Amino acid sequence: MKLTILFGGASFEHEISVVSAITLKEKLSNFSLNFVFCDQEHNFYLIEASKMKATTFSRGEYKKMPKLSIASGAFVHKTLFNSSEYSATVLNLIHGADGEDGSIAALLDFFSIKYIGPRIDASVFSYDKRYTKWLCSARGVKSVKHEELSLKEHSNIKIPYPVIIKPSRLGSSIGVSIVKEESELDYALDTAFEYDTSVIVEPFLHCVKEYNLAGFMAKGKIHFSIVEEPQKNEFLDFEKKYMDFSRSTQVLKADITKELELKLKINFEKIYKNMFEGALIRCDFFVVDGEVYLNEINPIPGSMANYLFEDFASSLEMLSNSLPHAKRAKTNYEYIHSISKAKGK
Amino acid sequence: MKLTILFGGASFEHEISVVSAITLKEKLSNFSLNFVFCDQEHNFYLIEASKMKATTFSRGEYKKMPKLSIASGAFVHKTLFNSSEYSATVLNLIHGADGEDGSIAALLDFFSIKYIGPRIDASVFSYDKRYTKWLCSARGVKSVKHEELSLKEHSNIKIPYPVIIKPSRLGSSIGVSIVKEESELDYALDTAFEYDTSVIVEPFLHCVKEYNLAGFMAKGKIHFSIVEEPQKNEFLDFEKKYMDFSRSTQVLKADITKELELKLKINFEKIYKNMFEGALIRCDFFVVDGEVYLNEINPIPGSMANYLFEDFASSLEMLSNSLPHAKRAKTNYEYIHSISKAKGK
Repeated sequence: MKLTILFGGASFEHEISVVSAITLKEKLSNFSLNFVFCDQEHNFYLIEASKMKATTFSRGEYKKMPKLSIASGAFVHKTLFNSSEYSATVLNLIHGADGEDGSIAALLDFFSIKYIGPRIDASVFSYDKRYTKWLCSARGVKSVKHEELSLKEHSNIKIPYPVIIKPSRLGSSIGVSIVKEESELDYALDTAFEYDTSVIVEPFLHCVKEYNLAGFMAKGKIHFSIVEEPQKNEFLDFEKKYMDFSRSTQVLKADITKELELKLKINFEKIYKNMFEGALIRCDFFVVDGEVYLNEINPIPGSMANYLFEDFASSLEMLSNSLPHAKRAKTNYEYIHSISKAKGK
Repeated sequence: MKLTILFGGASFEHEISVVSAITLKEKLSNFSLNFVFCDQEHNFYLIEASKMKATTFSRGEYKKMPKLSIASGAFVHKTLFNSSEYSATVLNLIHGADGEDGSIAALLDFFSIKYIGPRIDASVFSYDKRYTKWLCSARGVKSVKHEELSLKEHSNIKIPYPVIIKPSRLGSSIGVSIVKEESELDYALDTAFEYDTSVIVEPFLHCVKEYNLAGFMAKGKIHFSIVEEPQKNEFLDFEKKYMDFSRSTQVLKADITKELELKLKINFEKIYKNMFEGALIRCDFFVVDGEVYLNEINPIPGSMANYLFEDFASSLEMLSNSLPHAKRAKTNYEYIHSISKAKGK
């Protein structure tokens, strides 16, 4: 199968995306892959498979590679006398800003390029943790109670300590802190506000079990991964998660009851349907006293959560054959014609 | 002031956008305007001001005009030996799909072109009437109760007749019907489902007063238009609204109490703040028994609701000097460097 891996982006998770792409190159070795790198200035480059290593990007060597533009149906490399098109389905692998905030989705939709990844709406509802909570409440999925803070109002928190402080719009634990007492609050807020103008405060839950479940819709039904119980420190910090993004060996199934597994799947389906079609997403759940809470939606999980699927390559192929079609409106200038007629012009 | 009017789009409201652009050409005659037309295939054309009339588009004459591409910071016209850049601030005047669904916002953000119009999030929350209701409930603004129907479930409606049936994602009354009794329901649903896979059912309210209020944020505060009580038939149908889009003479202030005016403004502000910055929007409200309900957000109102502003040109200039800056993340490859170092490479 042909696939264009699109990665990089002007995002705090830029490096994670590079690692994800390198991991997928190994994991999808039987695919025919192109690699398109989006640099931090939003230029696109075609990266030769043999150059897919971290130093190509960190040393700026990518700048010597063919520069691409985006056009109807394809990425294009133009030279003075020639132009080559790269029109394969795109796997949007840009984590964080650009990839997960709806920008790349809109760009690919606008230029009629087929892609695996969240559409615009799905991006907006998963990228901003405030909107994820609205989605949950509209669809009958529980989420952890929270408060929102904006830059001006800072420190008036009603939730009792310990609390967890998160920028509203970042993933990969960037800017996240656990605050055990009031004296630590200002520093944690300053850290979070470095990354966003909006911050979410949640109670830090003890005795919480955490489970991750990935899946995607193909041929009218949702195909689930295994359920994983991620290893825990207090929480996964950036460096830990960063290493996590290069995982490629399948993990063990969490030791949970059939009943809990079903509950997780039902909650996943409530979130996914009529929103995330076209994407392979990972939902991270909390379980407290047998109740399931959605913690976070990863609409482009690190290395596509390949390690949760028994046959990742076939799953991706199935998904890419079930992508939603954007229906485009057509006009025949009926109203303008009838008005022109009425005016006798 | 320089401004690029971007209009057209692959939208059921394509023609309305053409009419809006022609109206603004007259209304902003003291501005230095460029006109960029987006056709239904998503090609961009530079339209000479003297050619800004409906027949240029309905007869396809625009195809002979200079074709533009979008690049970093500007629309560009390339010829064999030359290239001209059009880098003025864009006024996004594409109504409906493309312009109001987040696509154009994402495109302009991605290519670092400054613009007047809703950002991606604001687009998603105003374009889909279901999400507008979520926004209302999160921000303490009342909206009319509703039911959602998707293609498969059709006719099981609990709200008593008469009801109003609307496609979830269209403006300008396209596909909207009032259903007085059950026998009319199937036809109305079929009509609505022609335009969208999701449909909203609301009670048709008698004795409702309707008020429109426009505004925008500039220099840290919201600048409001006058409040208008739009003329009413049962509701404005497409043809009526279409004519409405070419309005350019200021309307009369609605005859309402100071108290009601304040209530409308407070509700407008709750919706606008931290969401619609950069846009001039019109909120359409219902008032029933003294209670204010948000009916609809128009993030790109027809001809920019110029007829509601005392000095429209100055308002637009003020807004264009207060546009939000998209902050772009930067990475210095810190993690990749440290990992490479650890590996001794």
